[in-house]
Amino acid sequence: MIRVSILGATGYSGGELIKILLNHPNARLQFLTSESSPGKPVWSVHPQLRGRLNHEFVAMDVKKIARESDVVFLCFPAGIGIGPTAALIKAGVKVIDLSGDFRLPTAKMYETHYHGKHGAPQLLKSAVYGLPELFREKIASASLIANPGCYATAATLSAAPLLRPCIIDPDSLIVDAKSGVSGAGKKVASSYMYSEVNENFHAYSVAVHRHQPEIETVLKKASSVGVRMTFTPHLVPMTRGILSVLYATLKRPMTTGTLRKLFVRQYENDTFVRVLPEGELPQTKNVTHTNYCDIGITQDSRLRRVIVVAAIDNLVKGASGQAVQNMNLIFNRPETEGLL
Amino acid sequence: MIRVSILGATGYSGGELIKILLNHPNARLQFLTSESSPGKPVWSVHPQLRGRLNHEFVAMDVKKIARESDVVFLCFPAGIGIGPTAALIKAGVKVIDLSGDFRLPTAKMYETHYHGKHGAPQLLKSAVYGLPELFREKIASASLIANPGCYATAATLSAAPLLRPCIIDPDSLIVDAKSGVSGAGKKVASSYMYSEVNENFHAYSVAVHRHQPEIETVLKKASSVGVRMTFTPHLVPMTRGILSVLYATLKRPMTTGTLRKLFVRQYENDTFVRVLPEGELPQTKNVTHTNYCDIGITQDSRLRRVIVVAAIDNLVKGASGQAVQNMNLIFNRPETEGLL
Amino acid sequence: MIRVSILGATGYSGGELIKILLNHPNARLQFLTSESSPGKPVWSVHPQLRGRLNHEFVAMDVKKIARESDVVFLCFPAGIGIGPTAALIKAGVKVIDLSGDFRLPTAKMYETHYHGKHGAPQLLKSAVYGLPELFREKIASASLIANPGCYATAATLSAAPLLRPCIIDPDSLIVDAKSGVSGAGKKVASSYMYSEVNENFHAYSVAVHRHQPEIETVLKKASSVGVRMTFTPHLVPMTRGILSVLYATLKRPMTTGTLRKLFVRQYENDTFVRVLPEGELPQTKNVTHTNYCDIGITQDSRLRRVIVVAAIDNLVKGASGQAVQNMNLIFNRPETEGLL
Amino acid sequence: MIRVSILGATGYSGGELIKILLNHPNARLQFLTSESSPGKPVWSVHPQLRGRLNHEFVAMDVKKIARESDVVFLCFPAGIGIGPTAALIKAGVKVIDLSGDFRLPTAKMYETHYHGKHGAPQLLKSAVYGLPELFREKIASASLIANPGCYATAATLSAAPLLRPCIIDPDSLIVDAKSGVSGAGKKVASSYMYSEVNENFHAYSVAVHRHQPEIETVLKKASSVGVRMTFTPHLVPMTRGILSVLYATLKRPMTTGTLRKLFVRQYENDTFVRVLPEGELPQTKNVTHTNYCDIGITQDSRLRRVIVVAAIDNLVKGASGQAVQNMNLIFNRPETEGLL
Repeated sequence: MIRVSILGATGYSGGELIKILLNHPNARLQFLTSESSPGKPVWSVHPQLRGRLNHEFVAMDVKKIARESDVVFLCFPAGIGIGPTAALIKAGVKVIDLSGDFRLPTAKMYETHYHGKHGAPQLLKSAVYGLPELFREKIASASLIANPGCYATAATLSAAPLLRPCIIDPDSLIVDAKSGVSGAGKKVASSYMYSEVNENFHAYSVAVHRHQPEIETVLKKASSVGVRMTFTPHLVPMTRGILSVLYATLKRPMTTGTLRKLFVRQYENDTFVRVLPEGELPQTKNVTHTNYCDIGITQDSRLRRVIVVAAIDNLVKGASGQAVQNMNLIFNRPETEGLL
Repeated sequence: MIRVSILGATGYSGGELIKILLNHPNARLQFLTSESSPGKPVWSVHPQLRGRLNHEFVAMDVKKIARESDVVFLCFPAGIGIGPTAALIKAGVKVIDLSGDFRLPTAKMYETHYHGKHGAPQLLKSAVYGLPELFREKIASASLIANPGCYATAATLSAAPLLRPCIIDPDSLIVDAKSGVSGAGKKVASSYMYSEVNENFHAYSVAVHRHQPEIETVLKKASSVGVRMTFTPHLVPMTRGILSVLYATLKRPMTTGTLRKLFVRQYENDTFVRVLPEGELPQTKNVTHTNYCDIGITQDSRLRRVIVVAAIDNLVKGASGQAVQNMNLIFNRPETEGLL
Repeated sequence: MIRVSILGATGYSGGELIKILLNHPNARLQFLTSESSPGKPVWSVHPQLRGRLNHEFVAMDVKKIARESDVVFLCFPAGIGIGPTAALIKAGVKVIDLSGDFRLPTAKMYETHYHGKHGAPQLLKSAVYGLPELFREKIASASLIANPGCYATAATLSAAPLLRPCIIDPDSLIVDAKSGVSGAGKKVASSYMYSEVNENFHAYSVAVHRHQPEIETVLKKASSVGVRMTFTPHLVPMTRGILSVLYATLKRPMTTGTLRKLFVRQYENDTFVRVLPEGELPQTKNVTHTNYCDIGITQDSRLRRVIVVAAIDNLVKGASGQAVQNMNLIFNRPETEGLL
Repeated sequence: MIRVSILGATGYSGGELIKILLNHPNARLQFLTSESSPGKPVWSVHPQLRGRLNHEFVAMDVKKIARESDVVFLCFPAGIGIGPTAALIKAGVKVIDLSGDFRLPTAKMYETHYHGKHGAPQLLKSAVYGLPELFREKIASASLIANPGCYATAATLSAAPLLRPCIIDPDSLIVDAKSGVSGAGKKVASSYMYSEVNENFHAYSVAVHRHQPEIETVLKKASSVGVRMTFTPHLVPMTRGILSVLYATLKRPMTTGTLRKLFVRQYENDTFVRVLPEGELPQTKNVTHTNYCDIGITQDSRLRRVIVVAAIDNLVKGASGQAVQNMNLIFNRPETEGLL
């Protein structure tokens, strides 16, 4: 039994993580922390779990948690979990961080994009980016996992197979991505009020979103080709789901079939990536409440422009499901355990 | 030209009021006040009105407003507008208050249901309940209008024709009402966040909502029969619209046709009440963005139970449209002016 | 391993059933039939299941299915499954019918409410109403289960604890119920088009819905008190979930605490019914994608009117989840197997 | 009074047109035709208009309509209105066609993209593309208006100011557009059912949508630069609204302020185009139920990529509102009459 604790477990990704782990045959929930609700039963914050577990939220006691956990998931907003991570790593516990704190390669990039000093820059080198489809082996032996951003998961899986020399123009990438509202977490803000979001659609943080450098960084790591991309996120009036549409210019003409084969080959051993038949494109509803990423490939051949569409559930493959996939790899469990 | 000012004009009912008045051929907007946004252009808060008016929000200066306005609409939350109302009435300006401050008949009832002392109890007697279909003549000569609550508008119009001696059992009334989320105003609260409301449906304030005593009070005023009702409001995952379903037990069997005739006769001179043909029931989408109230009548004859379904737009007939209808009556304009 | 086949498996309840059974540790899918799509892979109709199973839809061959199945679920619209049911029962296979074909006690009632002759009236007597919380023992030994209607499940669980002599007036019952759109199945009709349902709310089939006699029938079976109720269904702009609000007049005053205890006692051994603490009311989002029924109790004490609010997922506890719960009982498996 | 008839008036754009024209001070509705509902009152199909007009739908009698109308709007699906248009033009009546029948410049292109022979190719030359912001003068003197497609309206207004020599790379254009479901009209199809669209997001007709050649054609007409673009439409779970995001590569670096000035200058006399301040981007809810097009400009300066975001209501500026704007121009009325 893998003993699991979750820090900051009151939000959407925390709730999803608990739900997944309750059905995991080899995980046991130890501590679920909340600074705002210590002593409150977990179901009072996640009422859909009423009757499923007897845990109460506890205040964070890193030493005790380290002693009685094999792995700790951090579901904090950016910045808050860096100190606890350092302490947990020191105590020999595996850490899977769902925030952006360990995704960028340098403290300087972190400061630029996260607007604060990084409290444990020495850990950035050892942190492994938790996208199993690209970094499975490194994840298996890592101590600290930077669980990928939701947009970054979809965009990176869409781009990776194209990043070989001579396939695409490296400055031609555009990712136009659309997310359901749960991606913003439980933050109470006027822009996420029902009457503001419903029957509305808009872009935000165009070309300045934090996931843009994250995607560029990981694609450089995963391939021999450095790319720069324009990233445009949008808010969709729905709760769950991300659809990411990637555009890139081919250096020379290729058939859609050939392009699709690049994806099929790349992901042939990846249960959670489903490359759709030619002519089909993903819909978010087909991946909601699952850990799948559906990918479809098409092109505008007149302009030698390939178009890759990917769909994930932002709370599962884009957060908590992928985190459990990483846990399975670390503890040498079947990668899909608890996730199908 | 009726010179109109609006106090507390940054919310949903304020925005709707501005939109309606911009298309009113005999109204001119004078002052739009906001304590939080003085000096800001109105379109910065109501961006759909960009280019439609040049007004800036101003801080509330009651004397100046009184001098340069014929009528003032108050769009404050309960409690805040009582002082300004007293001052405006004293200065001889007509006041149409969209809050609940002047809807209940006594200061004591106000304290019970609004949890605060009433600051101008002397005005409660003279305040006229602004439901034109029942109190048209009183409204025309009133100085202070208590504009009805959104639920109360739908429920009262559903019940009024039944309140004659010997038709229904006066303790049998139930109103099961459902509202879109804009009824809660622009209040930023976790329970109105998109991810909490979307794909969700629930009841709230069951049998303890403030509109319950309001409805009972106005029905007593409008009829010879005192009634008590159980009132259950619900939150519907949509922005606008109220559907109210009223149940009452008939004292003796009546055909649906006869019941329907009670409604037809009651509302035969009321442009904004549409009594549907037998066999049809209202849908909120047919009244959204209009000042109409659609009413359908059916029954469970086995149990002698009449069922009256009414639909309104909570922001129009349930708030700002009805407020303008009241203004038209006070200033002797055609009742529908600016509202069709 | 329980060998399971599903007839008419292309709709929403069929898809949900497949999803649940894929995660059931003691069930194996045998045949999934479709008259419209024989030969097509199951994932082509249920794309969220792509990669989860290799089955193709087959045309219905009752003999073969009977030979190789222990239990057959029927997911047909009303009327179509009566013949196959008779054949399967004759062949000694357990049948769980998700339609309304076997829910009413007599062929005459069936004809009245389902507008067609019943093709196997001799089976009506032996059919057991598959609501485990009320008929657990009979279900365990039944051959033919009439799986309850979605509205009926919520309403019956709300009413049953109140049906003891001297508690409520038996003619005072009203159930005002609200359902997400998936309750209508995959039927393609203008009234279920997105632009007609979104931002809209309305009642339908008021006091003439088929679930009304179903509820009255089962409540009579389950209690010593015969009741008649007015049943009003509504369409909510959401995909999944039912909220049912029951009103009944108490014969004598009772505290809400005492009323609640009737429910706690009734359901103390029922994992899937969660009676909420006093002061809390259910929300559909807390039961969506689960087999739970959440129940909250309150009252309007002025009028001695008890109000019982229940929430279920119409596709799980209201259809496929409950069907699997029934299967578990028949095959002597833990009742919650595959359902948590 | 302009005498107006509408052919095919039962759909969404027909209903919107009637609503707008009822409030137009200089238009009078003559004939509203429907082949499926002749003799039925208009409100039975458009129930939100109950009480607003007494018209009944009539079967199409082109001669009679021509005799008693000054202008005829055609709201047919593609192909159906070509014959009537020819007859009406011959009879000297102005025609505003809301379908795609007269938007492409040649019969050959029509055949390629609309999969049918064009029945009146001789009219294609004289048809004027009804985008007032680009073709105001030609529209004023036209007999036959091809009212623009909804996507095409947003995309063309986004691109036009950039189409001067030496500003953008003409093969770099991508338009990633998102539309509410009413854009598909009242067509009853499984892909537009509520349960399929709600909580779902997907792209469709990627790089093969009919509006792609339409946009390319009109941009060539409006500018000295020929462009080719990749066009990707998506379905958003909302009823109304289009958000169009255009990407293009600048030939040389320009500040966002300079880029924005191109738009301000282009649209300085266009009431219905609102160029937003730098730093702001459009949201569909700000234009819904209006004839406005909001445009915001930003860029990814690292990659010299300009990003233009435009929002319209697909049924107003994208269809019926723009059609009335065209009517106003033809009949020398103020362009905004009936539209504010």
